[in-house]
Amino acid sequence: MAERITPRSTDHSQWYLDVIREAGLADYGPVRGTMVIRPYGYAIWERIQQGLDGMFKATGHQNAYFPMFIPMSFLEKEKQHVEGFAPELAVVTIGGGKTLEEPLVVRPTSETIINHMFSTWIQSYRDLPLLINQWCNVVRWELRTRPFLRTLEFLWQEGHTAHATAEEAQEETLRMLEVYRSFAHDEAAVPVVAGRKTEREKFAGADASYTIEALLGDGKALQSGTSHNLGQNFARAFHTQYLDTNNTLQHVWQTSWGLSTRFIGAIILTHGDDSGLRLPPRLAPIQVVIVPIYRDDAGKAAVMAAVDELRAALGTSVRLHVDDRDERPGFKFTEWEIKGVPLRIEIGPRDVEQGVVTVARRDDGSKTTVPRADLPGRIGALLDAVQDGLYAQASAFVADNTHAADDEASFTAALARGGFVRVLWAGGSEDEAAIQEAHGATIRCLPFEQPDAPGKCFYTGKETSTVALFARAY
Amino acid sequence: MAERITPRSTDHSQWYLDVIREAGLADYGPVRGTMVIRPYGYAIWERIQQGLDGMFKATGHQNAYFPMFIPMSFLEKEKQHVEGFAPELAVVTIGGGKTLEEPLVVRPTSETIINHMFSTWIQSYRDLPLLINQWCNVVRWELRTRPFLRTLEFLWQEGHTAHATAEEAQEETLRMLEVYRSFAHDEAAVPVVAGRKTEREKFAGADASYTIEALLGDGKALQSGTSHNLGQNFARAFHTQYLDTNNTLQHVWQTSWGLSTRFIGAIILTHGDDSGLRLPPRLAPIQVVIVPIYRDDAGKAAVMAAVDELRAALGTSVRLHVDDRDERPGFKFTEWEIKGVPLRIEIGPRDVEQGVVTVARRDDGSKTTVPRADLPGRIGALLDAVQDGLYAQASAFVADNTHAADDEASFTAALARGGFVRVLWAGGSEDEAAIQEAHGATIRCLPFEQPDAPGKCFYTGKETSTVALFARAY
Repeated sequence: MAERITPRSTDHSQWYLDVIREAGLADYGPVRGTMVIRPYGYAIWERIQQGLDGMFKATGHQNAYFPMFIPMSFLEKEKQHVEGFAPELAVVTIGGGKTLEEPLVVRPTSETIINHMFSTWIQSYRDLPLLINQWCNVVRWELRTRPFLRTLEFLWQEGHTAHATAEEAQEETLRMLEVYRSFAHDEAAVPVVAGRKTEREKFAGADASYTIEALLGDGKALQSGTSHNLGQNFARAFHTQYLDTNNTLQHVWQTSWGLSTRFIGAIILTHGDDSGLRLPPRLAPIQVVIVPIYRDDAGKAAVMAAVDELRAALGTSVRLHVDDRDERPGFKFTEWEIKGVPLRIEIGPRDVEQGVVTVARRDDGSKTTVPRADLPGRIGALLDAVQDGLYAQASAFVADNTHAADDEASFTAALARGGFVRVLWAGGSEDEAAIQEAHGATIRCLPFEQPDAPGKCFYTGKETSTVALFARAY
Repeated sequence: MAERITPRSTDHSQWYLDVIREAGLADYGPVRGTMVIRPYGYAIWERIQQGLDGMFKATGHQNAYFPMFIPMSFLEKEKQHVEGFAPELAVVTIGGGKTLEEPLVVRPTSETIINHMFSTWIQSYRDLPLLINQWCNVVRWELRTRPFLRTLEFLWQEGHTAHATAEEAQEETLRMLEVYRSFAHDEAAVPVVAGRKTEREKFAGADASYTIEALLGDGKALQSGTSHNLGQNFARAFHTQYLDTNNTLQHVWQTSWGLSTRFIGAIILTHGDDSGLRLPPRLAPIQVVIVPIYRDDAGKAAVMAAVDELRAALGTSVRLHVDDRDERPGFKFTEWEIKGVPLRIEIGPRDVEQGVVTVARRDDGSKTTVPRADLPGRIGALLDAVQDGLYAQASAFVADNTHAADDEASFTAALARGGFVRVLWAGGSEDEAAIQEAHGATIRCLPFEQPDAPGKCFYTGKETSTVALFARAY
């Protein structure tokens, strides 16, 4: 039988596609670059939605829904914005059998239509801050696509806020980046580097963009969530103004921030191994799978009685699945490993006699024998151990694959090893472009954590104390 | 000051638009026929989603996501389907700056693309039943639009299932209609009549369609949720087949079912009154609003201490909002009445002294004095009373506005009074068309509840035992 999953060392790209197919996460759609998110993949997205939505509401945001169709003229109001998005647009030109007078853009993001509405909703300082989030689909006509990482249509949330002062907008921008960082860390066990984007890499229409960057198993970086300080750029384009306490008309200060189904790609590529997916327990649709093992009807009766008892004892404390299909245990083990279920519980006739179960951890493959009666009390700690184990492994990987460079030779050598390359940086956008051209690497971010000691820029030789993180990226 | 809300008796259509605007439910989008769902309206949708999603999962369904763009050729595969939807399509003809070889339809519904995928996912009887649901946006290029009731883009869920037998598909079709009926009844306090659509009114591509029909405050009916038995129509068009236990290739039997943001229109138009919205407690984003009342700082301190104590005592048992804005109580009362909050709690200095609060019910306007210490124990029953009160009023309205007719004269008279007209029916599609032309009314459904006694069809005079429910409808 051919391997269901290509080893990573053989072909990392193929490994990624194999895992997505075999774990039942997604499938190609009929239109080039589109993706069907299958139930198991969508269940991960539901966990992400639930987690983030709670964090957004806890920080005072409300959900709303804005139309998907945006008049082309709206995009043209903000110069940088339309330049950034024009090449990627899907355009509706026919509606109800007739050619439309003005073509409609399928939203690639919603700053323009939201500002159009904000300009009517916001009158005075009492209406501020206005803190809105939207869960929706967006379309960007990408040429090179890859399931989850870059698809023509994707699902995301986009936060849009308006504030009375520049300071508040900046605070909000950083607050929401921290929401993403802590979500990645605490829920997805994905270590990320938080920092600012350079001028060249920032969002089209923003004053400043911030990002969380993950480092994936193949040594490439992935922008996994972004938060933008939009300044007054869209407010000026759409006349989004308020009367301040002195009765003077002012433009609002704005932010936007988004995280998408791309994040599922970050999870797969951070934690996956040659056996398939490894899911962090807090986001896993199934946290624990029970596989009963027996050879005959008598054995089956005894084992299933113990399984039922265990299921009742665990109740709703964990997301549990009992795999009672009529298949060999080995087949089931392989399947649940591919699907990345954090804990597998095996119960055979001898286990029943001895009052124990075997618990196999997906993060490190270890097996422990646990008294059956103790399991309900220990299951939470076992799941936490897998969560921590995955984070520790991923964190060590990032540390092992972050290299410093102080000249172009060491930079080239570091890039060849893969991972993040940490340098002192005083270059400009043209220098970045030249490096990308020569090395295929970009500045992922200027990390918030910066060293104290100044030194020479590895590329321009200028004195600087700014650290930049380069990598090849998706 | 002009009335914020036009009385229903003056202009029912304007009343509806006024309520939507003043309660902050929705706003017009910039593109004709599109709608922005504002946070308060979207919070109702979130409650609907949460309730239905739980019911779908409890009946074995899983969520997934399919691409929004469907090749035009897919729609053409099922003849009735394309005939039904072709006039309403939005079409993308440009992507990434280039004219597309094949135009893409923005999904008006997803039977075709889902069958395309099902045909690859389903191989054998072991893959059945396949029970999928999708939450998404859809687009239908409607000419006459109305917020929530009929918009160019709307949000909905669409269930799509595949089964091995016709019987299972029929069971599923009725099971999901019953989910909608019980949701409308139990959660939204909206009485609906469940029944079958006639051949003329059924879904384009279905063998049979079932519906829940609400009767709104203006005497018009609203199709509020539908469930379709698709037979093998799409399976044949897309070759969605499985190997049965005899190793014979068979077409699957399918269902689809949907409920949309239109349901918010049903809630507004079932329960609203001249003071604004009245929300059923189980779906209300805010169930209880506390309005502190005071004249001076000393009074404020005492009242707010009592409010804080009450807030702490209520905890998370209800969705609570404290309106501590610096506005007059009368202004606040009006606002929360417009927003339809089920219970308003008033606390003034004298109430604090006496250890009581005043509870005002939105369903009947009644006020009761309740000892403050008793409120946490009684709040659940009070909310239930409002829920039941709204249902009882709506139910009485349906009963009062359902009239029998036994010939065309009495039919005309009954229609003029508004509401449902109950008749014996043995006509065909052409008779229905003639009646719609003459009276502007359609058969909303053939109710599941049918009388025993046969008689003469009010229109054709033929002997029949089938009851039909006519109404003018949205």
